[in-house]
Amino acid sequence: MMMQTPLTMTQMIKRAERFFPKKEVVSRTASGIQRFTYKEIAERTRRLAEALQKLEVERGDKVGTLAWNHHRHLEAYFAIPCSGAVLHTVNIRLSPQHIVYIINHAEDKVLLIDSDIVPLIEAVKDKLSSVKAFIIMTDDQELPETSLSPVYHYEKLLAEATGDYEFPDDLDENSPAGMCYTSATTGNPKGVIYSHRGIVLHSMALGMADSAGVSEKDIAMPVVPMFHVNAWGLPFAAVWFGTNLVMPGPYFTPKLLAELIQEEKVTITAGVPTIWLGLLKELDENEYDMRSLRSILCGGSAAPKGMIKAFEQKHNIPFMHAYGMTETSPLVVISTLKSYQEELSYEERLDLKSKQGILVPGLEMKIVGKDGEASWDGKEMGELAIRGPWIASEYYKDERTADGFRDGWLYTGDVVTIDEEGFMKIVDRTKDLIKSGGEWISSVDLENALMAHEAVFEAAVVAVPHEEWQERPVACVVLKDAFKGKTDKQELLEFLKPQFAKWWLPDEILFLNEIPKTSVGKFLKMALRDQVHKELTEMNE
Amino acid sequence: MMMQTPLTMTQMIKRAERFFPKKEVVSRTASGIQRFTYKEIAERTRRLAEALQKLEVERGDKVGTLAWNHHRHLEAYFAIPCSGAVLHTVNIRLSPQHIVYIINHAEDKVLLIDSDIVPLIEAVKDKLSSVKAFIIMTDDQELPETSLSPVYHYEKLLAEATGDYEFPDDLDENSPAGMCYTSATTGNPKGVIYSHRGIVLHSMALGMADSAGVSEKDIAMPVVPMFHVNAWGLPFAAVWFGTNLVMPGPYFTPKLLAELIQEEKVTITAGVPTIWLGLLKELDENEYDMRSLRSILCGGSAAPKGMIKAFEQKHNIPFMHAYGMTETSPLVVISTLKSYQEELSYEERLDLKSKQGILVPGLEMKIVGKDGEASWDGKEMGELAIRGPWIASEYYKDERTADGFRDGWLYTGDVVTIDEEGFMKIVDRTKDLIKSGGEWISSVDLENALMAHEAVFEAAVVAVPHEEWQERPVACVVLKDAFKGKTDKQELLEFLKPQFAKWWLPDEILFLNEIPKTSVGKFLKMALRDQVHKELTEMNE
Repeated sequence: MMMQTPLTMTQMIKRAERFFPKKEVVSRTASGIQRFTYKEIAERTRRLAEALQKLEVERGDKVGTLAWNHHRHLEAYFAIPCSGAVLHTVNIRLSPQHIVYIINHAEDKVLLIDSDIVPLIEAVKDKLSSVKAFIIMTDDQELPETSLSPVYHYEKLLAEATGDYEFPDDLDENSPAGMCYTSATTGNPKGVIYSHRGIVLHSMALGMADSAGVSEKDIAMPVVPMFHVNAWGLPFAAVWFGTNLVMPGPYFTPKLLAELIQEEKVTITAGVPTIWLGLLKELDENEYDMRSLRSILCGGSAAPKGMIKAFEQKHNIPFMHAYGMTETSPLVVISTLKSYQEELSYEERLDLKSKQGILVPGLEMKIVGKDGEASWDGKEMGELAIRGPWIASEYYKDERTADGFRDGWLYTGDVVTIDEEGFMKIVDRTKDLIKSGGEWISSVDLENALMAHEAVFEAAVVAVPHEEWQERPVACVVLKDAFKGKTDKQELLEFLKPQFAKWWLPDEILFLNEIPKTSVGKFLKMALRDQVHKELTEMNE
Repeated sequence: MMMQTPLTMTQMIKRAERFFPKKEVVSRTASGIQRFTYKEIAERTRRLAEALQKLEVERGDKVGTLAWNHHRHLEAYFAIPCSGAVLHTVNIRLSPQHIVYIINHAEDKVLLIDSDIVPLIEAVKDKLSSVKAFIIMTDDQELPETSLSPVYHYEKLLAEATGDYEFPDDLDENSPAGMCYTSATTGNPKGVIYSHRGIVLHSMALGMADSAGVSEKDIAMPVVPMFHVNAWGLPFAAVWFGTNLVMPGPYFTPKLLAELIQEEKVTITAGVPTIWLGLLKELDENEYDMRSLRSILCGGSAAPKGMIKAFEQKHNIPFMHAYGMTETSPLVVISTLKSYQEELSYEERLDLKSKQGILVPGLEMKIVGKDGEASWDGKEMGELAIRGPWIASEYYKDERTADGFRDGWLYTGDVVTIDEEGFMKIVDRTKDLIKSGGEWISSVDLENALMAHEAVFEAAVVAVPHEEWQERPVACVVLKDAFKGKTDKQELLEFLKPQFAKWWLPDEILFLNEIPKTSVGKFLKMALRDQVHKELTEMNE
């Protein structure tokens, strides 16, 4: 029989250290660009693991990170799971109350925080119930003034460590390695736990020639934030395979991304459509040398066909469309064409490339329609269900597990077709969620907030397509008779402001006489979207 | 947490069927070349699984194959494990007594046999203790005359099946899927069991961009026999990824291989150095279009540097050196260069390429010397030990497990160095085995047979390098005084002939006055090899 050696993440950092000590991580932080070899990264990772051990982080303990894409976050990506603890990447774009909720729900014992994010945590620190220590990741010699306590300086902790920490070799492959929360249709975010086994298999999938083909020869730049589904697993794969990494850091601009690609000779990069629309504009306006780029990996939302075409035809940059979600680690399908499809005309290939793609080896998918499993003919629609070893089986300590997981399958909430060649295409969403620039917005939460206003009789929020952000929320409001003509858009927006992150606020509020409903009184969102589309078009004429 | 979906092989054939029904298997059998789509192969595979079920093959039962590389063998590769039985590929080049031993030791319930191999089994059929049925794989409408019983016609079994067989979805990933026997230093071959999990992970490794990078875009021709470590796993990977396969069938010549590569536009092929030396000669002598070939994968024995250079420099065909063994599924290391090594001079790159290569992601290796673990400096030597999820943990029902497996590691018997870059190079072998044209020969068994001759006082057999076969056995014999000058080489060879396969017989028998020994009386094989080398050189001058 075969050895029962577990699929654990310790092998990844050890392989980088042993086989690729000379390879590089280029890290942009608040103070500029720094360069590290994997030898240095591995040593610093061991020191961080040792420091966490001194802070009494034990196996199974959760350690939260609130940070951008840089080398210290990368070190945390390995030091935490490779010592048996759980890497909890906190989405810093969530509202403060949601951030408090997920830190408390995960029971994070230690938080690693970028210095610019410290104020956000200071504001809510009294509500955090489990955190025993704060570590600030800063380039400065000294800690900033802070009310957090006890608080540690990341670099000082590393400097104080002996450096002789050894990663344990007895971790179970099914033990938790990471976790990430995803927005729910309403209410608090739901947590997903990633196992060592899932992350290892997902990383292998990223390295396969027919998927992203991440290789030692690549120079990979994850633009997708490290607080979004492990930056799609790219940092794990890159370290394992000895791939040079370019970490773009906080508050980057399209110009900065273009410069990094040009100067660091990036070969593969990954992010949401909003990012690539920005880059495309920059490339259209200024001259850059993008010849190193073998692939732009795009997911999080459907990529507009025109954008794919512009990258490929105008700038000669291959574009790779993919699909996944927090629950799926995330890679599920990827739009790599089959050999014989390469012979199609460009327009036909573009049609395929603007679909989400075909299934990565290792997973299963099916379409579930009203009458059971739908056929793969590119026409029959139904909800996409997925199964496989890097797909979540539940939400962490959450009753809402029952909504998404049934009979051993994850029900994605995405309405899709799959064509005869196995290419999946998203056509609609069953859940009341809006995806704006790669982040989820709950239409239900906005509706509930609006309906709490004294003037509002009923309110529905729908997604409208948006050129830059893919989708934006628009609210449809029916005012109570007494308030008609008296309450305006501005008043309602002011009312919402304190309750939500700024980017959640509806772009437009339309006042209607009624909201179309189903026979059982539910909002008919599809009809409403059509109506909104018409009204907005008229407004813009 | 993540789903506990098992890593089983059923997903491979189902993926080919669902996503790649149009892709092709080109199969050369005794009667010529036939072409099948994966749709057809999958349907035939289901029919074979159904037929085996009717023959009462149950989960865990062993089914033996004695066959060349063709589409029916490929169908057996999936029908057997995907129905829960165990695919036992029997090495038809072993001696009849070893073939009898392994079929009985594995307890094969059914044998699938190529028609040209039927006589071999007829000759030993009375010694087979577990076989309940024989299936003959033939292109002919009717079965050949045979004394085997009960005997079935492969195509008729398939024709009689309903075709609605469904693969079970409850196989355990750690259950046995395949098995293969490997030659021992002495005595009977030792069996290795492959699990579903091991085969799935090994296939992923074959598909990774940094290893063989097997892809849907490839057209793969496994020249390595399917009775050698699953044809190095290529058939599994190819079916899973929808890669076109070219199966070269029985008794091929270098000319035939060159023609298949040219006509079928093969992109990747795999085999032992002896095969490639033959192909090289053919390419030197005749014109072929080899531009489709992106890689020749070479393993089984060390590839001569001159051959690598000739393929790459003279014929512009990239050459990929790899290392593995029956116990390792087999892929362990592969000589893909690192990005910065591509900038070295060709001679420097050639030096690296003639090493066995660097470790595939997922495994661990170390060198164990006299004083514990040796360092990776390209100089310190020791025995290579390997660990990982596609490495065997034991020999099947065999006390000799203790020889090869210690402390959770496989001890390979190969003496190696590993350089600072992690490139492993074989420098010697601790085991008394000779590898001739990809097959093992036991020097100890030859020695024991020689010492059973009345004239022989003592005998040692060593490997000498050979241009075509990489290694060939040469015997060193000390005659008893009474026989000196009376017994000659011819007499000893005639004495050995009935006991061994023809290709086991020593190329030369040297008569010495004594055999160099260690202080404890063991043959000093290294000194002996030098002495033999000198004597042979003198003989040839």
